[in-house]
Amino acid sequence: MEWRYSQPVTIIFGSNKLNSLHEILNEYGLKNGLLVCDPFFEKNGLSQRVVELSKGLIKDVFFDITPNPTVENVDSCADIIRKNNIEFLIALGGGSSLDCAKASASICKTNDSIREYIGTGKVFNNDSLPIIAIPTTSGTGSEVTCVSVLTDHKNNIKAPVVHKNFYPKIAIIDPVLTITVPPYITASTGFDVLAHALEGFWSKNHQPICDALAIHAAKLVFENLYDAYVDGSNLAAREKLSEASVIAGLAFSIPKTAGSHACSYPLTSIYKIPHGEACAFTLDLFTRINTKVDDRLSYFANQLGYDSAYEMADRILELKKMMNMKITLKDAGIKLDDLEELSKLCMHPNMLNNPIEMNPSSIKNMFLSLNY
Amino acid sequence: MEWRYSQPVTIIFGSNKLNSLHEILNEYGLKNGLLVCDPFFEKNGLSQRVVELSKGLIKDVFFDITPNPTVENVDSCADIIRKNNIEFLIALGGGSSLDCAKASASICKTNDSIREYIGTGKVFNNDSLPIIAIPTTSGTGSEVTCVSVLTDHKNNIKAPVVHKNFYPKIAIIDPVLTITVPPYITASTGFDVLAHALEGFWSKNHQPICDALAIHAAKLVFENLYDAYVDGSNLAAREKLSEASVIAGLAFSIPKTAGSHACSYPLTSIYKIPHGEACAFTLDLFTRINTKVDDRLSYFANQLGYDSAYEMADRILELKKMMNMKITLKDAGIKLDDLEELSKLCMHPNMLNNPIEMNPSSIKNMFLSLNY
Repeated sequence: MEWRYSQPVTIIFGSNKLNSLHEILNEYGLKNGLLVCDPFFEKNGLSQRVVELSKGLIKDVFFDITPNPTVENVDSCADIIRKNNIEFLIALGGGSSLDCAKASASICKTNDSIREYIGTGKVFNNDSLPIIAIPTTSGTGSEVTCVSVLTDHKNNIKAPVVHKNFYPKIAIIDPVLTITVPPYITASTGFDVLAHALEGFWSKNHQPICDALAIHAAKLVFENLYDAYVDGSNLAAREKLSEASVIAGLAFSIPKTAGSHACSYPLTSIYKIPHGEACAFTLDLFTRINTKVDDRLSYFANQLGYDSAYEMADRILELKKMMNMKITLKDAGIKLDDLEELSKLCMHPNMLNNPIEMNPSSIKNMFLSLNY
Repeated sequence: MEWRYSQPVTIIFGSNKLNSLHEILNEYGLKNGLLVCDPFFEKNGLSQRVVELSKGLIKDVFFDITPNPTVENVDSCADIIRKNNIEFLIALGGGSSLDCAKASASICKTNDSIREYIGTGKVFNNDSLPIIAIPTTSGTGSEVTCVSVLTDHKNNIKAPVVHKNFYPKIAIIDPVLTITVPPYITASTGFDVLAHALEGFWSKNHQPICDALAIHAAKLVFENLYDAYVDGSNLAAREKLSEASVIAGLAFSIPKTAGSHACSYPLTSIYKIPHGEACAFTLDLFTRINTKVDDRLSYFANQLGYDSAYEMADRILELKKMMNMKITLKDAGIKLDDLEELSKLCMHPNMLNNPIEMNPSSIKNMFLSLNY
């Protein structure tokens, strides 16, 4: 077996670790920063708190980020960086602020628009500003990946852009920031974490370090997600989910995701199911399908205390029900007549990483099992 | 819980991966290299092969390395680097060539002797040459750590020197290189790997990523060490041990080792027991001692398929017997009268990482259990 592993992000983990922001920035000699921030945190005061905690090291805040960050968001952010001689970025939020910061930190070193790099194969040079990622949900794992998902409305493209520049320099994981995440988002993002762990493990590109981390992360989700869902203020559960999220990020960052993520994209774009819930929609199904060809999934299930991958799939379904996730086609608003087209759209490139080969017909059959 | 994780080494793993050396060096733009090589590999032809595989990118070979590398080894190596405008180092061998290369790669950027940095607190500047580590045993894990152990005979010091410069840029792990390792060294270095995994896990500085990796690595040692011991040409077993070695390296690199490594140092310096076997000497004993205060060890044992840490300790002892490791005080040449002094010498700083506090009296009692 051949594999290659590399993980350049320094992870700093701990409840209330955000309070050490000034210390951390000083340790790395960072000054003249721009806070790239989900606009939600302007309203609730977190962005002001982060600026204060930086004790003058953050010079400006950029809030102009839409939920699916656009070419325009990135280009404006890069403009501000250039005009203000910004030397590092702090990305605060879920995935969007990080997507925007990752792209802006590279593009600002050129006079290009990010548009030139989306789906064109144009390669970034290796020069970029350091990024400090501070996630506010336990979900995307984006703080340890080198992917930015961007939307170009003009050319009608939404696509991942990947470059090693996009790895944050530091990820500060402060579980306290996730305490206020409401139950539904806790559940949805939590299933995203579980999908990262399971799919990283069963991806055709699986490799040992990521395997070990996937087992660790998935176990934590099974043990803590429901507790954090019923009581968001349960810090012990939040800490374990934050740990799961960043470690699942490491687990899928190199192997990439597979079937459930591939299916999630049309479920989100057409049926407006939020990303994590869209991944959860097929996660128990793919667990049952993939264990037929991948013995390693029995081992995975055993390490988590299940007798088999089937029993683990049962528990995923049970957890989905306990947290009011959509289960059936009817729940998701999918009509039988839609299945032909939907199944084709699920053949996203990530589907090629799935250990059992899927095609529109087998995907349609999978969805048909949810017709009740 | 607070933790920080960082792991800057790119790991490239695969049987016969050494054959891709030229490609790898090219990928990273490396040229004008020096091969820092255990002199054993001059005799068996491996050094010549590595030079050939570099297709001209290695300019010179440095063989002047003793088993416990000295100040003089490092200073001569640094001289050659300076004189030949060397731009990167390849360290080929067990621990010694890496210890020498790590220190030389930093010192060559100054006119200092490495002596000025051993035990003095003098800090390296952040400039150093990139190092490519190619381990030839499954043991030290040094290819993913930032520690170099050096000996200064003039001042009668043998001490670890630690700096982030010392992390190799790339570790090329080619299990085929370990095929010729004889049975005794296979066993001894294999127990070193097991000690890294167990001690990294039970170290007071334990943290989740390293925990997950420790479980993965230890499992591989239990499953494959004896097979590689009885048949060195068993490539499947060698591959798993190489995987275990580098992953155990990651597992202890940050938490550091604890009781068994602390005891190993006087066992090696006074009783001339090679390092891995010296770690093995107390590894089952510390497993029994530490599980009394650290519940996590039961979990560790369960994940490996044992009912308890005690059953796992029994298996360690059994494996030691199967591979003719020293078990009793008599085997090791330790007299009852020596125990007072030996137990004091075991209070090496790493003993402070042990989850249960040890003192010379409890260490002496531990050794007395081996008086049969």
